[in-house]
Amino acid sequence: MTAAPHENAVRDSTAPYEHAMRHALSLASRGPVTGGNPQVGCVLLSPDGEIVAEGWHRGAGTPHAEVDALSKVDDARGLTAVVTLEPCNHHGRTGPCSVALIVAGVARVVYAVDDPGRASSGGATHLRNAGVDVVPGVLADEAETFLTKWLTATRRGTPWVTLKWAASLDGRSAAADGSSQWITGTAARQLVHEQRAESDAILVGTGTVIADDPSLTARGDAGELLAHQPLPVVVGERPVPEGAKLREREFVAAHSRDLEEVLRDLYGRGIRRAYVEGGPTLASAFVRAGLVDEFLVFVAPKLIGGPRIAVDDLGIGSIDEAIPLTFTGVEALGDDILITAVPATKVEE
Amino acid sequence: MTAAPHENAVRDSTAPYEHAMRHALSLASRGPVTGGNPQVGCVLLSPDGEIVAEGWHRGAGTPHAEVDALSKVDDARGLTAVVTLEPCNHHGRTGPCSVALIVAGVARVVYAVDDPGRASSGGATHLRNAGVDVVPGVLADEAETFLTKWLTATRRGTPWVTLKWAASLDGRSAAADGSSQWITGTAARQLVHEQRAESDAILVGTGTVIADDPSLTARGDAGELLAHQPLPVVVGERPVPEGAKLREREFVAAHSRDLEEVLRDLYGRGIRRAYVEGGPTLASAFVRAGLVDEFLVFVAPKLIGGPRIAVDDLGIGSIDEAIPLTFTGVEALGDDILITAVPATKVEE
Ligand SMILES: NC(=O)c1ccc[n+]([C@@H]2O[C@H](COP(=O)([O-])OP(=O)(O)OC[C@H]3O[C@@H](n4cnc5c(N)ncnc54)[C@H](OP(=O)(O)O)[C@@H]3O)[C@@H](O)[C@H]2O)c1
Ligand SMILES: NC(=O)c1ccc[n+]([C@@H]2O[C@H](COP(=O)([O-])OP(=O)(O)OC[C@H]3O[C@@H](n4cnc5c(N)ncnc54)[C@H](OP(=O)(O)O)[C@@H]3O)[C@@H](O)[C@H]2O)c1
Repeated sequence: MTAAPHENAVRDSTAPYEHAMRHALSLASRGPVTGGNPQVGCVLLSPDGEIVAEGWHRGAGTPHAEVDALSKVDDARGLTAVVTLEPCNHHGRTGPCSVALIVAGVARVVYAVDDPGRASSGGATHLRNAGVDVVPGVLADEAETFLTKWLTATRRGTPWVTLKWAASLDGRSAAADGSSQWITGTAARQLVHEQRAESDAILVGTGTVIADDPSLTARGDAGELLAHQPLPVVVGERPVPEGAKLREREFVAAHSRDLEEVLRDLYGRGIRRAYVEGGPTLASAFVRAGLVDEFLVFVAPKLIGGPRIAVDDLGIGSIDEAIPLTFTGVEALGDDILITAVPATKVEE
Repeated sequence: MTAAPHENAVRDSTAPYEHAMRHALSLASRGPVTGGNPQVGCVLLSPDGEIVAEGWHRGAGTPHAEVDALSKVDDARGLTAVVTLEPCNHHGRTGPCSVALIVAGVARVVYAVDDPGRASSGGATHLRNAGVDVVPGVLADEAETFLTKWLTATRRGTPWVTLKWAASLDGRSAAADGSSQWITGTAARQLVHEQRAESDAILVGTGTVIADDPSLTARGDAGELLAHQPLPVVVGERPVPEGAKLREREFVAAHSRDLEEVLRDLYGRGIRRAYVEGGPTLASAFVRAGLVDEFLVFVAPKLIGGPRIAVDDLGIGSIDEAIPLTFTGVEALGDDILITAVPATKVEE
């Protein structure tokens, strides 16, 4: 790839935009993490570098960050747009941002991360072809980290998968008779509800639905429903029982054991963050298939023993075949401990 | 219990001795944690409160802290002895400290914790009867915490029991074929060797000896033997195989499955700190019998799955019967995590 001469010149001058990009990232974080669309922020700078407008995306069906910022100024001619993600190039519900920027007469577009969407990418090229100065890659690492779940999902075409389980210190998810309420304390349970509310979907196996009849809602301290409710997804070939609590709301019965296919289908429905809650059979299947991006393990100060282990067989014969993880965090959570981990291979990449 | 009038008076005046007691506790910590005897420190104060001598106990067969301190002064008459544990009253290898203090002419003895030993207690009464002013209970809580393992063992007549296991994030201690070297990394393994060196005995089941033929030594970074070596104890009815590595050194074959009896026997041999290393069957038996004082769980960033679980059945049917613990610590250790816990009942007591 040969870069146009002006590209090299501007690449050396990305530093002046870092402050504005950091501000755009903080604007981006005001948007919702769920709903399928990325969190994006945008600021408009005057030729002397003053912030003259701010914008951010408030979720699917609302204006993109660039359009939101442009709506705050009477005349955008000659301004610089600093935006956390490459302006989109596709005719979605709101029209391409690249066109909106060109029409508005913006002189320069500075962005952090390339748009990985197949339908939406190409915005930078479109802008350049229209004579707009384009500066890519400003604070690319920060933006990549900030958007990592959405970017990973979009590049891959399957949702970001968080596998969560709760277990006693000896790794049990339930007692011999199947009872497991409550292994962990209120702080851990409340965090699970918040994490559900930050997910597009919750996945469980048919086994859990048949055994526990869970409602799989995201609830607050007082039992009230939180504003965002994830889509419950039941994975497995058996039907969801008539009269199951799940049936009171919208849910998906993914009648399949092909987890990659299930994930592709969920992606097609706009799911970018999938929160897998178990049980042991489904959790183990996700691990065996190498489909987990992130592990959240709640460890309770209890010993239970017996046959109900949080993770079942993984098809591993010898210790050399063990699946390597990297711990990314460990914290006390009420009386419990929360351990977070990622596949080690993903860290090394 | 009615207190003699002078006792109440001096109890109000323990504050002046706290500084000296804190110093005595730091002297105590110079002594060895193993060997059956408590870590004890002593300072001698002049009538105006100046420290004129220090002493501490260096382990079984060496002078007690009081005698060590007395040996540093020509004339102890009128001095105050500040000692972390009630002076002993029995004719062990070194003669009773109560007598040594009386003979030396010490005017007052200040101590933190009563001697729980059946044979050695009564020192305070003996001192009082000889006209020595006695001030008990100074910094009693600190001293109790400092000496808790030895005090617990001595009061109970069985060693303090630390149960250690290493497991993957999903609670497995080995792969399906039994291989487990190495689940944890070097930092965790090195800590285990240091903990062995701070124990009087290491306990394993016959299963581990037959399967792994471990040497159960405490070794340093370079594989060298550390100064203190714990006594290896093999618990179970089967014989230790001819040619087992353990046979190269002194070891105990406790031909029994009655763990309380095994512990009483070990106490009789001077064992105060027992470090139980497994395997799963012995670990589970210790838990079921309620004989564990402290849990050390090394969690490795791996998933293994399968049948080799660090803790087996505990005879628990329903979640309400789960054994409640209290987490006392969690820390990163190289790539691993170390979780420490104690039985919850012991905390509430
Ligand atoms: N402590 C916790 O965190 C926690 C969380 C959830 C559940 N649980 C407990 O877990 C127990 C249920 O365990 P479970 O293992 O039977 O339930 P499960 O994992 O929820 O469901 C197992 C079912 O998942 C389906 N499945 C979908 N894809 C699969 C694949 N690739 N491979 C294998 N199976 C696949 C199969 O259903 P089909 O046969 O229909 O195809 C399978 O029978 C309950 O007692 C519940 O309380 C505990
Ligand atoms: N990852 C780790 O931290 C770790 C540590 C140690 C061992 N391991 C692994 O554990 C495996 C061995 O497991 P294991 O469970 O067979 O070994 P184990 O627990 O060392 O030994 C089991 C034996 O302990 C004896 N025993 C003594 N008191 C008992 C009681 N109250 N109840 C029941 N049994 C009692 C019995 O021997 P008798 O039949 O002779 O009476 C029993 O067969 C090995 O593969 C080893 O590698 C892993």
